[in-house]
Amino acid sequence: MKPDTMTMTALDSKQDTVCIFGTGDFGRSLGLRLLHAGYNVVYGSRNPKNSALLPKGAKVMPHEEASRTARVIFVAIHRENYDFLASLSPALEGKVLVDISNNLKKHQYTESNAEYLSMLVPGALVVKAFNTISAWSLQSGGLDANRQVLICGNHVDAKQVVVDIAHSLGLNAVDRGSLRVASELEDLPLQLFPLWRLPLRISAGLLGAFFLYVLIRDVVYARVVDNKDNSFRIMVSLANKVFPMVALVMLALCYLPGIIAAFLQLYNGTKYRRFPDWLDHWMLCRKQLGLLALAFAFLHVLYTLVIPIRYFVFYKRANIYISLIKENKTYEFKEMWAWRSDAYLSTGMLGFALFVLLGITSLPSVSNSLNWREFRFIQSKLGYLALLLCTAHVFLYGWDNFLYMSAYKWCMPSSYMLSLVVPCIVLVFKTVLIMPCVDRTITRIRQGWERPGKAGMGKDAKNSQPLIL
Amino acid sequence: MKPDTMTMTALDSKQDTVCIFGTGDFGRSLGLRLLHAGYNVVYGSRNPKNSALLPKGAKVMPHEEASRTARVIFVAIHRENYDFLASLSPALEGKVLVDISNNLKKHQYTESNAEYLSMLVPGALVVKAFNTISAWSLQSGGLDANRQVLICGNHVDAKQVVVDIAHSLGLNAVDRGSLRVASELEDLPLQLFPLWRLPLRISAGLLGAFFLYVLIRDVVYARVVDNKDNSFRIMVSLANKVFPMVALVMLALCYLPGIIAAFLQLYNGTKYRRFPDWLDHWMLCRKQLGLLALAFAFLHVLYTLVIPIRYFVFYKRANIYISLIKENKTYEFKEMWAWRSDAYLSTGMLGFALFVLLGITSLPSVSNSLNWREFRFIQSKLGYLALLLCTAHVFLYGWDNFLYMSAYKWCMPSSYMLSLVVPCIVLVFKTVLIMPCVDRTITRIRQGWERPGKAGMGKDAKNSQPLIL
Amino acid sequence: MKPDTMTMTALDSKQDTVCIFGTGDFGRSLGLRLLHAGYNVVYGSRNPKNSALLPKGAKVMPHEEASRTARVIFVAIHRENYDFLASLSPALEGKVLVDISNNLKKHQYTESNAEYLSMLVPGALVVKAFNTISAWSLQSGGLDANRQVLICGNHVDAKQVVVDIAHSLGLNAVDRGSLRVASELEDLPLQLFPLWRLPLRISAGLLGAFFLYVLIRDVVYARVVDNKDNSFRIMVSLANKVFPMVALVMLALCYLPGIIAAFLQLYNGTKYRRFPDWLDHWMLCRKQLGLLALAFAFLHVLYTLVIPIRYFVFYKRANIYISLIKENKTYEFKEMWAWRSDAYLSTGMLGFALFVLLGITSLPSVSNSLNWREFRFIQSKLGYLALLLCTAHVFLYGWDNFLYMSAYKWCMPSSYMLSLVVPCIVLVFKTVLIMPCVDRTITRIRQGWERPGKAGMGKDAKNSQPLIL
Repeated sequence: MKPDTMTMTALDSKQDTVCIFGTGDFGRSLGLRLLHAGYNVVYGSRNPKNSALLPKGAKVMPHEEASRTARVIFVAIHRENYDFLASLSPALEGKVLVDISNNLKKHQYTESNAEYLSMLVPGALVVKAFNTISAWSLQSGGLDANRQVLICGNHVDAKQVVVDIAHSLGLNAVDRGSLRVASELEDLPLQLFPLWRLPLRISAGLLGAFFLYVLIRDVVYARVVDNKDNSFRIMVSLANKVFPMVALVMLALCYLPGIIAAFLQLYNGTKYRRFPDWLDHWMLCRKQLGLLALAFAFLHVLYTLVIPIRYFVFYKRANIYISLIKENKTYEFKEMWAWRSDAYLSTGMLGFALFVLLGITSLPSVSNSLNWREFRFIQSKLGYLALLLCTAHVFLYGWDNFLYMSAYKWCMPSSYMLSLVVPCIVLVFKTVLIMPCVDRTITRIRQGWERPGKAGMGKDAKNSQPLIL
Repeated sequence: MKPDTMTMTALDSKQDTVCIFGTGDFGRSLGLRLLHAGYNVVYGSRNPKNSALLPKGAKVMPHEEASRTARVIFVAIHRENYDFLASLSPALEGKVLVDISNNLKKHQYTESNAEYLSMLVPGALVVKAFNTISAWSLQSGGLDANRQVLICGNHVDAKQVVVDIAHSLGLNAVDRGSLRVASELEDLPLQLFPLWRLPLRISAGLLGAFFLYVLIRDVVYARVVDNKDNSFRIMVSLANKVFPMVALVMLALCYLPGIIAAFLQLYNGTKYRRFPDWLDHWMLCRKQLGLLALAFAFLHVLYTLVIPIRYFVFYKRANIYISLIKENKTYEFKEMWAWRSDAYLSTGMLGFALFVLLGITSLPSVSNSLNWREFRFIQSKLGYLALLLCTAHVFLYGWDNFLYMSAYKWCMPSSYMLSLVVPCIVLVFKTVLIMPCVDRTITRIRQGWERPGKAGMGKDAKNSQPLIL
Repeated sequence: MKPDTMTMTALDSKQDTVCIFGTGDFGRSLGLRLLHAGYNVVYGSRNPKNSALLPKGAKVMPHEEASRTARVIFVAIHRENYDFLASLSPALEGKVLVDISNNLKKHQYTESNAEYLSMLVPGALVVKAFNTISAWSLQSGGLDANRQVLICGNHVDAKQVVVDIAHSLGLNAVDRGSLRVASELEDLPLQLFPLWRLPLRISAGLLGAFFLYVLIRDVVYARVVDNKDNSFRIMVSLANKVFPMVALVMLALCYLPGIIAAFLQLYNGTKYRRFPDWLDHWMLCRKQLGLLALAFAFLHVLYTLVIPIRYFVFYKRANIYISLIKENKTYEFKEMWAWRSDAYLSTGMLGFALFVLLGITSLPSVSNSLNWREFRFIQSKLGYLALLLCTAHVFLYGWDNFLYMSAYKWCMPSSYMLSLVVPCIVLVFKTVLIMPCVDRTITRIRQGWERPGKAGMGKDAKNSQPLIL
């Protein structure tokens, strides 16, 4: 064979034929893209005559005939219409059937569509793939999130064929295991930030409650009692009171479930007892709580750094200078104030820097490159340090304000005091947990020890449940 | 068998032999690294005598003899010299041939080097690998980017052998599919930020144009008309006018192609019509446009926050205070100004925070963990919100300036007005698109519906083209 | 078969049986999780009677009997106790043995536990997996870092079975290659930031030394000579002197080893000569040095932006204004000062922005998406630009201070001068290296050329060593 002939053969081999059952939107989009990538495309259809909408260049045949032309068949039809495939079983024997279907809601059927398909056509090599790709993005091709084709199936060779097709279309293929994973893949496109819902609701609730509190205390009070209009302060000053409160409380809420869990284990005397569902759920969304807290902390930093640029601040400072001069005074230096201002700024900045570090290590690619000792060191040790610094930041900010009546307008304490409640609870109980005697017991329990006489895994079996997740 | 003997066997088995054809730089670097990892290395060479430059410990033999010593043979020679391998076919039967070659430019040959090699030696198991690793990094080993060995090939076992070798050398191996992907892998090392070129050029163009405009309006005008030297303002003040303009325009340019595409689809009455090439290309580099816009927004934030530290600002403020006192006035509080200043700061900060969020979700590891509904929600919904906030930020910054003549020096409007043109166009047309009647049509078209009487996919086939990417 | 029957079969097939040898903590945690995921779990034990602690629902049998019930057997026992498995060889023939063991320290044994197991039971298909998962996280399931199950083994099918189990448990499985990689996987959980140690020590050393220096020069000197108490300046002012110094020196230390390596190669006349160990180690942790430098630069930015909010600054400015007015002066505008202040702020901000860009491209997912040309362009070209900008930033900050005696209290130069030493050395030698004549030689050497008469790879072989990593 001469090189030139070889080259031709190579190009020919690219002209693989792919069959698509179904002429709906996804089938057509996929066909177009396959044609453009150099494949021959054959559609299987009940009415091969009625092919007006199919992409130019594709052939249309009855299902059985179409399935003979190709090794790979994309099943772009709804699960409800799978039944007729059983009658095609002989023609589909040994073919790679790619199930791309999705359901309308989670757990719609007892088994995944792909497993159902593989039962209908036992002789076919069923691969689940492409269901996480949208028809629209298959065409426009631009968005990154859609580049990833998740694949599962029981036959390595069959998966390899689908991986190749995905690559030909400019997509990345990720093998996720056997067909058993299919139901997980089918649930993927249905969810919209499942783990973010609770944290988002908590932050919205805190944001609303704190804002209302601050509004009443700072604006309504000034209007009613002092007859002063402070409403312009809402945009920046009030926001910059609410954001750090939400951030601090949510950061503390990240660490609270771990502490509750530890005390539960201490009380139960074993770790092999299931936590209540709410605690499980809370623990699962700690990362999301933390990231939202970081977002609010970031806003707090921005809103704070912008202070000297604000017109209101410029005005206030100007008048301080002017009145000082009019009264012929110099501005007296109080060293204690310098210490205090620098101390609360420092703790705040260091706490924020640690917080950013925690956020960075939460990035999937970074946390995957850490082993669990490293990850735990950062998220637990440094996390508590961040919480400690931020709590100190608020205490130093408040200083001795709590001693003066002016901090309790209408019996409402200053807003910053409110935000200290949860963090202080967390820090106090954490201090209890790291005391040597308690720590030793917890460590033993987490290594599998069970307190005698307490309900263990074996005894009192009626109450104990398999654990978590 | 006693454990001790077993241990010896295990260590022996590490002494696998690897053969390398070619004694060039890459061959020698690879050999050194393999030797260091505990492999026996045998070089295949035409002049086995002339082996002065080869690493100590490696053997050199004629090609045929060398190929008999090992199961794996690295082909570290140029494609132009592959021909002689055809004559070695019998000796290479069943061997794993690792093609590590690269070309000098893209699409130099009709088929990839690896596919060519597999045609020359049909009996060998050809694997494409290591071509994305540089010889220099193979030796120095430090840089992360080089840790990833992309591998493709048609034989699973052969790929596994190469994966193992990569791991032994401390590298990560990533299986990219069958040999068909080889041409893609061969193009990889040749590119330098292909998708960044257009966005970088656009940003450079905008930067230059806006800078010139601002320079003329602020510095040249002051010099010519007021005979004042403002040139010191170039470094920070002018930069801080240009950066936000570029950021805003580029953010709007991210969303413009999507709007053009929607109107094109409305006009065509179908989504199965190819977009013009320029629009395709534009859509593909939206992410890069957005990230550059974020970079400029980040600079704008830094340059803004630094304002109160600048000497010039300190000077200006000092003189305002001094003149106020000399004229025996107090600085009058204008509540409207407080609202305005706080409003434009707030919108700016919230817009920037959303912008940062968009940037974070553009990180590959983050966007891969989102499904397309989630990604779309963030990049589209939150993206438009960011654009809206940033546009509002500029409007509030400008306030009623546009009403005064002083905003039109030499008939040139204030710079901020210029930056509003593209965002306003985008927002207006987006408003049109989300009106219920238009939105319904667009949605139907994107679900595959085609307007009757318009050129569809099937009819008028001469004009329609397979779609995109 | 009717669909309903099929569904039942599918559910039944989920009821796979998994066997676990060992009833320690990990065995029990794994068993609980497997039970919860729908598996039948059978424990192999010496005392099947004594099963009080095992999870409810699991069966317990003698080892041999237990191994017959399942295809997959998790070996959750210590390596020291593996010996008895050899006697079970016939029963384990063809079974998938999952080795999950870890050692107490690195390189405890000559071969990995998994390889040892595979020698003891040659007929079994040994897979190394789950050792990077902690028992605690297997139960609580929440933390991201523990989601990744690293797997290696010589049998593709056996690995697939384990991948499936990992997925069933909600974990991600990553195939890392053949059993040869096992020792690497066994070392993983033992390490705690190995590459971060040197950089952390360097930064701690620099931080301490510079802080002491600044403390003596600014606080102690003021106390002793001027009898002034400056100690409140420690928290912010002094920190903000030390952070940028550490950041700049550490950034320069990232680039110093590359320069030393280049000069070594020039001196040796070859690149095929091993670097000294300290240089190798230094080069390997450049990324970590750079990221720590970025952290300090970030703190410097925060501490700088916070300046105008500080009480001390407010006080100082107030008194400047007051004294100006008292002396009936206006604050005179010095254009040179405006240039200087703006110039050092600009270089600082641009340098920091570039620095952040370098940090972002160091994220694993970003650097993996770059080829080595792109990565090198950013890390080398843009890195040197960042270093140049930051060095210029410090020079502009210092301005002509070095000319005045006040900059040398107690013969100690201003702190900023200290931080310039290393960066200047790096920049000067880099300038030498990019001069055409030197650059040409370096390039040739890096392409494999060796200077005649110098000790090459072949000649003088006693001194030359296989290279690096």
